[in-house]
Amino acid sequence: MSLDAEAFAALLCDYCLGATRGDQVVVRSTSLAAPLLLALERQLLEREAWPLLRIALPEQEAAFWSAARDVHLDGFPPIELAEAEGTDASLRIDAPSNTRALAGVDAARLTRAARARAPVREAALRRRWCVTVWPTPAGAQQAGMATEDFAAFVRRALFLDRDDPVAAWGELHDVQSRLVERLERAAEIRIEADGTDLTLSVAGRTWINSDGKRNMPSGEVFTGPLETSAEGRIRFDVPSSPRGLEVSGVELEFREGRVTAAHADRGDDVLQAMLATDDGARRLGELGIGTNFGIDRAVGSTLFDEKIGGTVHLALGRSYPETGGTNESAIHWDMICDLRRGGRLSADGEPVVDGGALTGAR
Amino acid sequence: MSLDAEAFAALLCDYCLGATRGDQVVVRSTSLAAPLLLALERQLLEREAWPLLRIALPEQEAAFWSAARDVHLDGFPPIELAEAEGTDASLRIDAPSNTRALAGVDAARLTRAARARAPVREAALRRRWCVTVWPTPAGAQQAGMATEDFAAFVRRALFLDRDDPVAAWGELHDVQSRLVERLERAAEIRIEADGTDLTLSVAGRTWINSDGKRNMPSGEVFTGPLETSAEGRIRFDVPSSPRGLEVSGVELEFREGRVTAAHADRGDDVLQAMLATDDGARRLGELGIGTNFGIDRAVGSTLFDEKIGGTVHLALGRSYPETGGTNESAIHWDMICDLRRGGRLSADGEPVVDGGALTGAR
Repeated sequence: MSLDAEAFAALLCDYCLGATRGDQVVVRSTSLAAPLLLALERQLLEREAWPLLRIALPEQEAAFWSAARDVHLDGFPPIELAEAEGTDASLRIDAPSNTRALAGVDAARLTRAARARAPVREAALRRRWCVTVWPTPAGAQQAGMATEDFAAFVRRALFLDRDDPVAAWGELHDVQSRLVERLERAAEIRIEADGTDLTLSVAGRTWINSDGKRNMPSGEVFTGPLETSAEGRIRFDVPSSPRGLEVSGVELEFREGRVTAAHADRGDDVLQAMLATDDGARRLGELGIGTNFGIDRAVGSTLFDEKIGGTVHLALGRSYPETGGTNESAIHWDMICDLRRGGRLSADGEPVVDGGALTGAR
Repeated sequence: MSLDAEAFAALLCDYCLGATRGDQVVVRSTSLAAPLLLALERQLLEREAWPLLRIALPEQEAAFWSAARDVHLDGFPPIELAEAEGTDASLRIDAPSNTRALAGVDAARLTRAARARAPVREAALRRRWCVTVWPTPAGAQQAGMATEDFAAFVRRALFLDRDDPVAAWGELHDVQSRLVERLERAAEIRIEADGTDLTLSVAGRTWINSDGKRNMPSGEVFTGPLETSAEGRIRFDVPSSPRGLEVSGVELEFREGRVTAAHADRGDDVLQAMLATDDGARRLGELGIGTNFGIDRAVGSTLFDEKIGGTVHLALGRSYPETGGTNESAIHWDMICDLRRGGRLSADGEPVVDGGALTGAR
C-alpha cells in the first residue's frame, strides 16, 4: 500500500511540530514532494497555523552551486536569519531529484558555505524543527528499490502502517527510556563485531531519547562519547554518502580518542579528505544505537540507516552539546556498524544490544 | 521562435529590477515558470544578488482557499511583513495552471483577505517591484492560442524579438515622454468610439510614463482623472476577468464622476457586485492609454490587454496616489476600450489617439 500524504502530514503537524493556532511554520522541500506539501498546506491551515512553503525546483540546488559567487559562500541573505528567528517551527522534507547532485561540487566550497550559514542554522535549531523525507524516484534508486516499494518502506519506517502511528511512537519512546536509563549508569561502552573491538567512555554524558519529533523517522538513543576515550578498531559495514559521495567498507583505528589509521574499500580519497578537515574530524562526536525495527535494511540515507533496529553508529566530528559532548568540527559524519549478525554492544561488560536485540531495554 | 528564458531573465534583472551586489530579490511564481525561475536564480547570483525564490505549487492557491480559516482572512504571518520590509526588490511572475482557479471562491472572502494583507502589499510597493508573466498552457488557453503561439506573442510583447530589448524599451519611454508632455497640458479628455462619448477632467493631475520597469510588458501612460468629472457613456469592447470571472460588453454611464447606469452583456451579476463593493468602486481611479504595438490583440489578461497600442482603459476603484488621484476603494478594475476601429481620444479638442495611432506623441 502506498504512502498516505494526509496521514503523513497529520503526524508531522501534531506529533513532530506540535503546530497550533498562530504558529508560523516554514516547510522546505522540492516540488517533487507536492502531495505531502499540499496536505501540509491544508492541514496547517486547519490548525489555524501559517504554512510558509519554501519550495525549490529539482534543478535549483545545482543552479545555485554552478552560479554562486564568493559573496554567496561567505554570507547569507539577512532575511533568512530574520525568518529563522521570527518563525515558530521549521520542517525540512528531503525530496531529491538526484542524490548525487552535489558530487561534482568542491567539498571546500560546501564547507565554506555551511560555515558562513551557521547563524541561520543555529537560530532555526533554537525553535521547533523536524527533518523528514518524501520518497522520490531518486531516493528509491539510491535505496536500490522500485519507487512504490521505497514508498512502502518509508511507510513502515514512519509507523504509518500502524493503526495509531502516534501511539506507536509513544511506545518506542518508552522502550528508549528504559535503554537510556540503563545507559546513563554506564561508564564504558564496548562494541564487538566482525573486524570490530572498540571501547569508549560515556561517563557523565547525557543520553538523548530520539523519539521521532526532530527526525521522522527516528528511533535511536545517542550521546557524545568522551573525546579522548576511543580505543581499538571498528569496521562500518553500511555504506554512507557524505555530500553525495559513496564511501563503503570504512575501517578506523583509534588511540586516545583520535583516528590513527583509516581505510575505505570504496571512496578512500573522500575518507582521507574528510579526516583532514580539522582536528575534530579525527575524533568522535556521537555514539548512537538504532532502535527502529520498522527499518529492516540500509537504503543509503543516514536518516533511515542510523535508525535500523539493532545497529550502532558513530559520528566523526561535531558533537551535540545537549549530550555533554565537546567535540568541535565542520563535519558530522555518521557511520553505521550492523550488530544483527552476531555483534554486540555492552555497557560495563553487560550486553545492551546483542545480535540485534535490545537486551538492555527489557 | 520560442521565448528565451535567459534573455527574459536578463531583461528582468537589469532593466526592471536593477539587481546588483547584495540585493535581496524575492521572486514569486508557480513551479510552471521553472525555466525562467532557474535562469533568474543563476543570473541574480551572477550579479552577486541574493535570489529568494518563493515558488508555489500549481494547486497551492486552491488548497489555501479551500482550507483557510477566519484567522487567515483577517491577518497575515508577521514574517511576510518583515520580508517585504527587509528585502530590496520583488518580482511576481504570473504562471497559472488555471486562470479560473478562483471562480468558485466567495468574492467577499477574497476582498477581506486582500484588505487584511494591505500592510504587506504596501511595504512591498515601497521597494523596487515588477510584475510579469510566463506563458503556461492555461494562459495560452485564456488567450485562445496554442501554447507555442502564446509564447511567441509574449516574446513580441516584451520586445524580446528585437536585437536590443533594453534599447527598444528606451525608445518607447521616449515616445511616451512626448505623449505625457502633451497630456500634462490638457484639462479635459474626451473619448469617442462606437457606443462611447465620455469626458473627464485631468487638470492638475500627473501622468505616469510606464516604461516596463514595474510591468513587463508595459507600454502605457496613465493618470487619475478628477473623481467627480466623468460625464457621458462608454462601452468596453475588450473582455476582462476580475477575480477570474469573465465579464464582457460592459457599458457604463457617468454623471458627476459617478456610475449611474451599468450593464454587461456577460457577467452582469459580477459587474453589479463589484460596483456595490464601496463608494469608490462607482468612481474612476485611472485613465490610461496603451502604447505597446508589440501587443496586437487582447489575450484575456489585463497586464497585456491594457497596453495594446491604440487602446484606452479606465479603472473603477482605487487610484494610484502618484497621479494625484484620490479615489479610495477595495477594488481596482481595469476595462479597455479599443480605439483602433475609428475611435479617438482628444485632449482639449485635439486628437491624441486617433484610429489607434498615437498622434499626440509626434
